[in-house]
Amino acid sequence: MYLYVGLVHYPVYNKNNERIASAISTVDLHDIARVAKTYDVRKFFVITPLVDQQVLAERIRRHWTNGFGAGYNSDRKDAFELVAIVPSLEQAILTTTEIEGKVPLLIATDASIQNDRSISYERAREIIQDSRVIILLFGTAWGLDKCIIDRADYVLDPISGKSNYNHLSVRAAAAIVLDRLACGECVR
Amino acid sequence: MYLYVGLVHYPVYNKNNERIASAISTVDLHDIARVAKTYDVRKFFVITPLVDQQVLAERIRRHWTNGFGAGYNSDRKDAFELVAIVPSLEQAILTTTEIEGKVPLLIATDASIQNDRSISYERAREIIQDSRVIILLFGTAWGLDKCIIDRADYVLDPISGKSNYNHLSVRAAAAIVLDRLACGECVR
Repeated sequence: MYLYVGLVHYPVYNKNNERIASAISTVDLHDIARVAKTYDVRKFFVITPLVDQQVLAERIRRHWTNGFGAGYNSDRKDAFELVAIVPSLEQAILTTTEIEGKVPLLIATDASIQNDRSISYERAREIIQDSRVIILLFGTAWGLDKCIIDRADYVLDPISGKSNYNHLSVRAAAAIVLDRLACGECVR
Repeated sequence: MYLYVGLVHYPVYNKNNERIASAISTVDLHDIARVAKTYDVRKFFVITPLVDQQVLAERIRRHWTNGFGAGYNSDRKDAFELVAIVPSLEQAILTTTEIEGKVPLLIATDASIQNDRSISYERAREIIQDSRVIILLFGTAWGLDKCIIDRADYVLDPISGKSNYNHLSVRAAAAIVLDRLACGECVR
Protein backbone atom coordinates (compact mmCIF):
# COMPACT_ATOMS: atom_id res chain seq x y z
CA MET A 1 0.00 0.00 0.00
CA TYR A 2 1.47 3.34 -1.09
CA LEU A 3 -1.09 5.69 0.34
CA TYR A 4 -0.49 9.41 0.90
CA VAL A 5 -2.89 11.97 2.34
CA GLY A 6 -3.10 15.64 1.32
CA LEU A 7 -4.97 18.22 3.37
CA VAL A 8 -5.67 21.13 1.03
CA HIS A 9 -5.88 24.70 2.39
CA TYR A 10 -5.87 26.29 -1.09
CA PRO A 11 -7.81 26.35 -3.31
CA VAL A 12 -10.91 25.60 -1.23
CA TYR A 13 -14.31 27.22 -0.89
CA ASN A 14 -15.62 29.43 1.88
CA LYS A 15 -19.26 29.54 3.04
CA ASN A 16 -20.14 31.84 0.13
CA ASN A 17 -18.65 29.55 -2.48
CA GLU A 18 -15.67 31.83 -3.04
CA ARG A 19 -12.17 30.49 -3.62
CA ILE A 20 -9.98 31.04 -0.54
CA ALA A 21 -6.88 29.89 1.30
CA SER A 22 -7.99 28.59 4.70
CA ALA A 23 -6.05 28.88 7.95
CA ILE A 24 -4.13 25.95 9.42
CA SER A 25 -6.03 24.30 12.26
CA THR A 26 -3.71 22.61 14.74
CA VAL A 27 -6.33 20.02 15.65
CA ASP A 28 -6.51 18.94 11.99
CA LEU A 29 -2.78 18.27 12.05
CA HIS A 30 -2.94 16.29 15.30
CA ASP A 31 -6.01 14.25 14.45
CA ILE A 32 -5.19 13.44 10.84
CA ALA A 33 -1.53 12.66 11.61
CA ARG A 34 -2.68 10.14 14.24
CA VAL A 35 -5.22 8.60 11.83
CA ALA A 36 -2.54 8.45 9.12
CA LYS A 37 -0.15 6.64 11.48
CA THR A 38 -2.90 4.18 12.48
CA TYR A 39 -3.58 3.24 8.86
CA ASP A 40 0.02 3.10 7.64
CA VAL A 41 -0.14 6.18 5.44
CA ARG A 42 3.33 7.01 4.08
CA LYS A 43 3.13 10.79 4.33
CA PHE A 44 0.59 13.41 5.33
CA PHE A 45 0.95 16.54 3.20
CA VAL A 46 -0.29 19.80 4.69
CA ILE A 47 -0.80 21.94 1.61
CA THR A 48 -0.80 25.72 1.95
CA PRO A 49 0.76 28.45 -0.20
CA LEU A 50 0.69 31.00 2.65
CA VAL A 51 4.17 31.44 4.06
CA ASP A 52 3.04 32.48 7.55
CA GLN A 53 0.83 29.38 7.70
CA GLN A 54 3.69 27.18 6.54
CA VAL A 55 5.84 28.64 9.31
CA LEU A 56 3.10 27.97 11.88
CA ALA A 57 2.56 24.39 10.71
CA GLU A 58 6.31 23.76 10.65
CA ARG A 59 6.64 25.12 14.19
CA ILE A 60 3.95 22.72 15.40
CA ARG A 61 5.54 19.82 13.55
CA ARG A 62 8.97 20.51 15.03
CA HIS A 63 7.59 20.90 18.54
CA TRP A 64 6.32 17.32 18.37
CA THR A 65 9.13 15.74 16.35
CA ASN A 66 12.18 17.50 17.84
CA GLY A 67 11.02 19.88 20.54
CA PHE A 68 9.57 19.46 24.01
CA GLY A 69 6.60 17.49 22.65
CA ALA A 70 8.83 14.73 21.28
CA GLY A 71 9.93 13.76 24.79
CA TYR A 72 6.60 14.51 26.41
CA ASN A 73 4.60 12.26 24.10
CA SER A 74 6.45 9.88 21.82
CA ASP A 75 3.21 8.60 20.28
CA ARG A 76 2.54 12.10 19.00
CA LYS A 77 6.13 12.22 17.68
CA ASP A 78 5.49 9.05 15.66
CA ALA A 79 2.40 10.64 14.13
CA PHE A 80 3.94 14.05 13.39
CA GLU A 81 6.90 12.44 11.65
CA LEU A 82 4.49 11.73 8.79
CA VAL A 83 3.69 15.44 8.35
CA ALA A 84 5.23 17.33 5.42
CA ILE A 85 4.29 20.95 4.81
CA VAL A 86 4.23 21.83 1.10
CA PRO A 87 3.16 24.96 -0.81
CA SER A 88 1.07 23.24 -3.47
CA LEU A 89 -0.49 20.04 -4.73
CA GLU A 90 2.19 20.07 -7.44
CA GLN A 91 4.89 19.87 -4.76
CA ALA A 92 3.07 17.00 -3.03
CA ILE A 93 2.93 15.13 -6.35
CA LEU A 94 6.64 15.81 -7.01
CA THR A 95 7.70 14.66 -3.54
CA THR A 96 5.63 11.49 -3.82
CA THR A 97 7.05 10.78 -7.28
CA GLU A 98 10.59 11.18 -5.94
CA ILE A 99 9.92 8.79 -3.05
CA GLU A 100 8.03 6.11 -4.95
CA GLY A 101 9.55 6.40 -8.40
CA LYS A 102 6.17 6.76 -10.04
CA VAL A 103 3.58 9.47 -10.45
CA PRO A 104 0.71 9.14 -7.94
CA LEU A 105 -2.95 8.88 -8.83
CA LEU A 106 -5.11 11.55 -7.20
CA ILE A 107 -8.32 10.57 -5.43
CA ALA A 108 -10.34 13.59 -4.29
CA THR A 109 -12.96 13.46 -1.55
CA ASP A 110 -16.07 15.61 -1.54
CA ALA A 111 -19.22 15.65 0.59
CA SER A 112 -21.55 15.96 -2.36
CA ILE A 113 -20.02 15.82 -5.83
CA GLN A 114 -20.68 12.84 -8.05
CA ASN A 115 -19.42 12.88 -11.62
CA ASP A 116 -18.10 10.56 -14.31
CA ARG A 117 -14.94 9.93 -12.29
CA SER A 118 -16.79 8.98 -9.10
CA ILE A 119 -15.76 5.70 -7.54
CA SER A 120 -17.13 3.55 -4.73
CA TYR A 121 -15.17 2.59 -1.61
CA GLU A 122 -14.90 -0.94 -2.95
CA ARG A 123 -13.36 0.26 -6.22
CA ALA A 124 -11.01 2.60 -4.35
CA ARG A 125 -9.82 -0.31 -2.19
CA GLU A 126 -9.08 -2.33 -5.32
CA ILE A 127 -7.04 0.54 -6.75
CA ILE A 128 -5.08 0.93 -3.51
CA GLN A 129 -4.47 -2.79 -3.12
CA ASP A 130 -3.36 -2.91 -6.75
CA SER A 131 -0.13 -1.33 -5.45
CA ARG A 132 -0.84 1.97 -7.06
CA VAL A 133 0.63 5.10 -5.54
CA ILE A 134 -2.23 7.30 -4.38
CA ILE A 135 -2.65 10.74 -2.85
CA LEU A 136 -6.01 10.97 -1.13
CA LEU A 137 -7.09 14.64 -1.05
CA PHE A 138 -9.25 16.26 1.61
CA GLY A 139 -10.46 19.85 1.53
CA THR A 140 -10.61 22.16 4.53
CA ALA A 141 -13.25 24.93 4.94
CA TRP A 142 -16.22 24.25 2.61
CA GLY A 143 -14.33 21.74 0.50
CA LEU A 144 -12.02 21.31 -2.47
CA ASP A 145 -12.18 23.83 -5.29
CA LYS A 146 -13.60 22.52 -8.56
CA CYS A 147 -10.18 22.80 -10.21
CA ILE A 148 -8.82 20.19 -7.79
CA ILE A 149 -11.83 17.94 -8.36
CA ASP A 150 -11.34 18.34 -12.12
CA ARG A 151 -7.68 17.48 -11.84
CA ALA A 152 -8.20 14.32 -9.76
CA ASP A 153 -8.17 10.94 -11.45
CA TYR A 154 -11.07 9.81 -9.27
CA VAL A 155 -13.60 11.34 -6.91
CA LEU A 156 -14.55 9.16 -3.95
CA ASP A 157 -18.25 8.77 -3.24
CA PRO A 158 -19.50 10.92 -0.34
CA ILE A 159 -19.72 9.26 3.08
CA SER A 160 -23.28 8.07 3.41
CA GLY A 161 -24.32 7.74 7.02
CA LYS A 162 -27.73 6.75 8.36
CA SER A 163 -29.25 10.18 7.79
CA ASN A 164 -29.07 12.70 4.96
CA TYR A 165 -26.78 14.84 7.08
CA ASN A 166 -23.37 15.19 5.41
CA HIS A 167 -21.57 17.88 7.35
CA LEU A 168 -18.72 16.05 9.03
CA SER A 169 -15.52 17.80 10.05
CA VAL A 170 -12.59 17.06 7.74
CA ARG A 171 -11.00 15.29 10.74
CA ALA A 172 -13.93 12.90 11.11
CA ALA A 173 -14.20 12.40 7.35
CA ALA A 174 -10.50 11.53 7.08
CA ALA A 175 -10.84 9.02 9.95
CA ILE A 176 -13.84 7.29 8.36
CA VAL A 177 -12.45 7.29 4.82
CA LEU A 178 -9.10 5.85 5.91
CA ASP A 179 -10.82 3.19 8.01
CA ARG A 180 -12.93 2.23 5.00
CA LEU A 181 -10.12 2.30 2.44
CA ALA A 182 -6.85 1.40 4.07
CA CYS A 183 -8.02 -1.46 6.15
CA GLY A 184 -9.88 -3.85 3.86
CA GLU A 185 -8.71 -6.85 5.82
CA CYS A 186 -9.21 -5.36 9.30
CA VAL A 187 -11.69 -7.00 11.60
CA ARG A 188 -14.72 -4.74 11.72
CA MET B 1 -31.83 1.81 16.33
CA TYR B 2 -31.81 3.43 19.75
CA LEU B 3 -28.24 4.51 19.98
CA TYR B 4 -26.93 7.11 22.43
CA VAL B 5 -23.38 8.37 22.82
CA GLY B 6 -21.75 9.45 26.09
CA LEU B 7 -18.49 11.40 26.21
CA VAL B 8 -17.07 10.90 29.70
CA HIS B 9 -14.96 13.62 31.34
CA TYR B 10 -14.99 11.94 34.77
CA PRO B 11 -13.80 9.47 35.84
CA VAL B 12 -11.01 9.17 33.27
CA TYR B 13 -7.24 8.69 33.48
CA ASN B 14 -4.50 11.24 32.97
CA LYS B 15 -1.06 10.47 31.52
CA ASN B 16 0.11 9.16 34.89
CA ASN B 17 -2.80 6.76 35.26
CA GLU B 18 -4.45 8.91 37.94
CA ARG B 19 -8.21 9.40 38.10
CA ILE B 20 -9.16 12.90 36.97
CA ALA B 21 -11.96 15.06 35.58
CA SER B 22 -10.85 16.35 32.17
CA ALA B 23 -11.68 19.75 30.69
CA ILE B 24 -14.33 20.18 28.01
CA SER B 25 -12.84 20.50 24.55
CA THR B 26 -15.08 22.46 22.22
CA VAL B 27 -13.81 20.60 19.17
CA ASP B 28 -14.94 17.31 20.75
CA LEU B 29 -18.45 18.72 21.04
CA HIS B 30 -18.52 19.97 17.43
CA ASP B 31 -16.97 16.90 15.84
CA ILE B 32 -18.84 14.24 17.80
CA ALA B 33 -22.19 16.06 17.53
CA ARG B 34 -21.80 16.13 13.73
CA VAL B 35 -20.83 12.43 13.65
CA ALA B 36 -23.81 11.63 15.90
CA LYS B 37 -26.17 13.48 13.56
CA THR B 38 -24.70 11.67 10.53
CA TYR B 39 -25.35 8.25 12.07
CA ASP B 40 -28.76 8.95 13.55
CA VAL B 41 -27.70 8.88 17.19
CA ARG B 42 -30.60 9.92 19.44
CA LYS B 43 -28.66 11.97 21.95
CA PHE B 44 -25.05 12.88 22.65
CA PHE B 45 -24.41 13.12 26.39
CA VAL B 46 -21.51 15.31 27.50
CA ILE B 47 -20.78 13.96 30.96
CA THR B 48 -18.97 16.17 33.47
CA PRO B 49 -19.54 16.74 37.20
CA LEU B 50 -17.67 20.09 37.15
CA VAL B 51 -20.17 22.92 37.31
CA ASP B 52 -17.96 25.46 35.52
CA GLN B 53 -17.42 22.98 32.71
CA GLN B 54 -21.16 22.29 32.50
CA VAL B 55 -21.74 26.04 32.20
CA LEU B 56 -19.12 26.30 29.44
CA ALA B 57 -20.55 23.36 27.49
CA GLU B 58 -24.08 24.70 27.89
CA ARG B 59 -22.98 28.11 26.63
CA ILE B 60 -21.48 26.51 23.52
CA ARG B 61 -24.59 24.40 22.99
CA ARG B 62 -26.91 27.39 23.26
CA HIS B 63 -24.77 29.51 20.94
CA TRP B 64 -25.35 26.94 18.19
CA THR B 65 -28.93 25.98 18.99
CA ASN B 66 -30.43 29.36 19.95
CA GLY B 67 -27.76 32.02 19.63
CA PHE B 68 -25.94 33.63 16.75
CA GLY B 69 -24.59 30.28 15.56
CA ALA B 70 -28.07 28.87 14.93
CA GLY B 71 -28.69 31.42 12.19
CA TYR B 72 -25.13 31.46 10.95
CA ASN B 73 -24.93 27.71 10.39
CA SER B 74 -28.12 25.66 10.58
CA ASP B 75 -26.24 22.40 9.95
CA ARG B 76 -24.35 22.99 13.16
CA LYS B 77 -27.66 23.74 14.91
CA ASP B 78 -29.01 20.34 13.80
CA ALA B 79 -25.95 18.64 15.28
CA PHE B 80 -25.90 20.58 18.56
CA GLU B 81 -29.56 19.83 19.19
CA LEU B 82 -28.44 16.31 20.02
CA VAL B 83 -26.14 17.53 22.81
CA ALA B 84 -27.24 17.10 26.44
CA ILE B 85 -24.92 18.10 29.26
CA VAL B 86 -25.27 15.86 32.31
CA PRO B 87 -23.34 15.59 35.58
CA SER B 88 -22.90 11.82 35.62
CA LEU B 89 -23.30 8.55 33.80
CA GLU B 90 -26.20 7.84 36.17
CA GLN B 91 -28.02 10.90 34.87
CA ALA B 92 -27.39 9.83 31.26
CA ILE B 93 -28.85 6.40 32.06
CA LEU B 94 -31.88 7.98 33.79
CA THR B 95 -32.56 10.37 30.91
CA THR B 96 -32.28 7.58 28.36
CA THR B 97 -34.59 5.36 30.41
CA GLU B 98 -37.17 8.15 30.61
CA ILE B 99 -37.07 8.70 26.83
CA GLU B 100 -37.06 5.07 25.72
CA GLY B 101 -39.01 3.40 28.54
CA LYS B 102 -36.26 0.88 29.11
CA VAL B 103 -32.89 0.80 30.79
CA PRO B 104 -30.02 1.13 28.29
CA LEU B 105 -27.18 -1.32 27.89
CA LEU B 106 -23.75 0.23 28.27
CA ILE B 107 -21.03 -0.45 25.70
CA ALA B 108 -17.67 1.00 26.71
CA THR B 109 -14.86 1.72 24.25
CA ASP B 110 -11.20 1.42 25.12
CA ALA B 111 -8.00 1.53 23.06
CA SER B 112 -6.48 -1.52 24.73
CA ILE B 113 -8.63 -3.40 27.23
CA GLN B 114 -9.92 -6.83 26.37
CA ASN B 115 -11.76 -8.82 29.00
CA ASP B 116 -14.55 -11.37 29.39
CA ARG B 117 -17.12 -8.77 28.29
CA SER B 118 -15.26 -7.80 25.12
CA ILE B 119 -17.31 -7.90 21.94
CA SER B 120 -16.50 -7.61 18.25
CA TYR B 121 -17.94 -4.95 15.95
CA GLU B 122 -20.08 -7.63 14.34
CA ARG B 123 -21.59 -8.67 17.68
CA ALA B 124 -22.13 -5.02 18.65
CA ARG B 125 -24.01 -4.41 15.38
CA GLU B 126 -26.26 -7.38 16.14
CA ILE B 127 -27.02 -6.02 19.61
CA ILE B 128 -27.80 -2.57 18.20
CA GLN B 129 -29.95 -3.92 15.39
CA ASP B 130 -31.75 -6.11 17.92
CA SER B 131 -33.54 -2.87 18.91
CA ARG B 132 -31.76 -2.64 22.19
CA VAL B 133 -31.28 0.75 23.78
CA ILE B 134 -27.55 1.40 23.97
CA ILE B 135 -25.29 4.08 25.38
CA LEU B 136 -21.90 3.93 23.68
CA LEU B 137 -19.28 5.38 26.04
CA PHE B 138 -16.10 7.16 25.00
CA GLY B 139 -13.43 8.41 27.40
CA THR B 140 -11.57 11.70 27.09
CA ALA B 141 -7.94 12.22 28.23
CA TRP B 142 -6.17 8.81 28.61
CA GLY B 143 -9.43 6.86 28.61
CA LEU B 144 -12.29 5.56 30.74
CA ASP B 145 -11.62 4.74 34.37
CA LYS B 146 -11.71 1.04 35.25
CA CYS B 147 -14.89 1.57 37.29
CA ILE B 148 -16.73 2.59 34.08
CA ILE B 149 -15.27 -0.37 32.19
CA ASP B 150 -16.34 -2.66 35.06
CA ARG B 151 -19.81 -1.21 35.04
CA ALA B 152 -20.36 -1.58 31.28
CA ASP B 153 -22.31 -4.54 29.94
CA TYR B 154 -19.86 -4.88 27.07
CA VAL B 155 -16.45 -3.54 26.08
CA LEU B 156 -15.98 -2.97 22.37
CA ASP B 157 -12.80 -4.35 20.81
CA PRO B 158 -10.12 -1.70 20.19
CA ILE B 159 -9.94 -0.20 16.70
CA SER B 160 -7.34 -2.20 14.83
CA GLY B 161 -5.81 -0.22 12.01
CA LYS B 162 -3.05 -1.33 9.70
CA SER B 163 -0.28 -0.65 12.20
CA ASN B 164 0.11 -1.31 15.91
CA TYR B 165 -0.41 2.37 16.59
CA ASN B 166 -3.56 2.90 18.66
CA HIS B 167 -3.47 6.50 19.74
CA LEU B 168 -6.40 8.08 17.93
CA SER B 169 -8.13 11.19 19.22
CA VAL B 170 -11.49 10.49 20.84
CA ARG B 171 -13.02 12.46 17.94
CA ALA B 172 -11.50 10.15 15.32
CA ALA B 173 -12.32 7.05 17.37
CA ALA B 174 -15.96 8.10 17.73
CA ALA B 175 -16.20 8.71 13.96
CA ILE B 176 -14.75 5.29 13.09
CA VAL B 177 -16.72 3.38 15.71
CA LEU B 178 -20.04 4.95 14.68
CA ASP B 179 -19.32 4.31 11.01
CA ARG B 180 -18.59 0.67 11.83
CA LEU B 181 -21.53 0.14 14.17
CA ALA B 182 -24.42 2.36 13.17
CA CYS B 183 -24.26 1.87 9.48
CA GLY B 184 -24.25 -1.88 8.86
CA GLU B 185 -26.22 -1.48 5.67
CA CYS B 186 -24.34 1.57 4.33
CA VAL B 187 -22.44 1.21 1.10
CA ARG B 188 -18.77 1.11 2.03
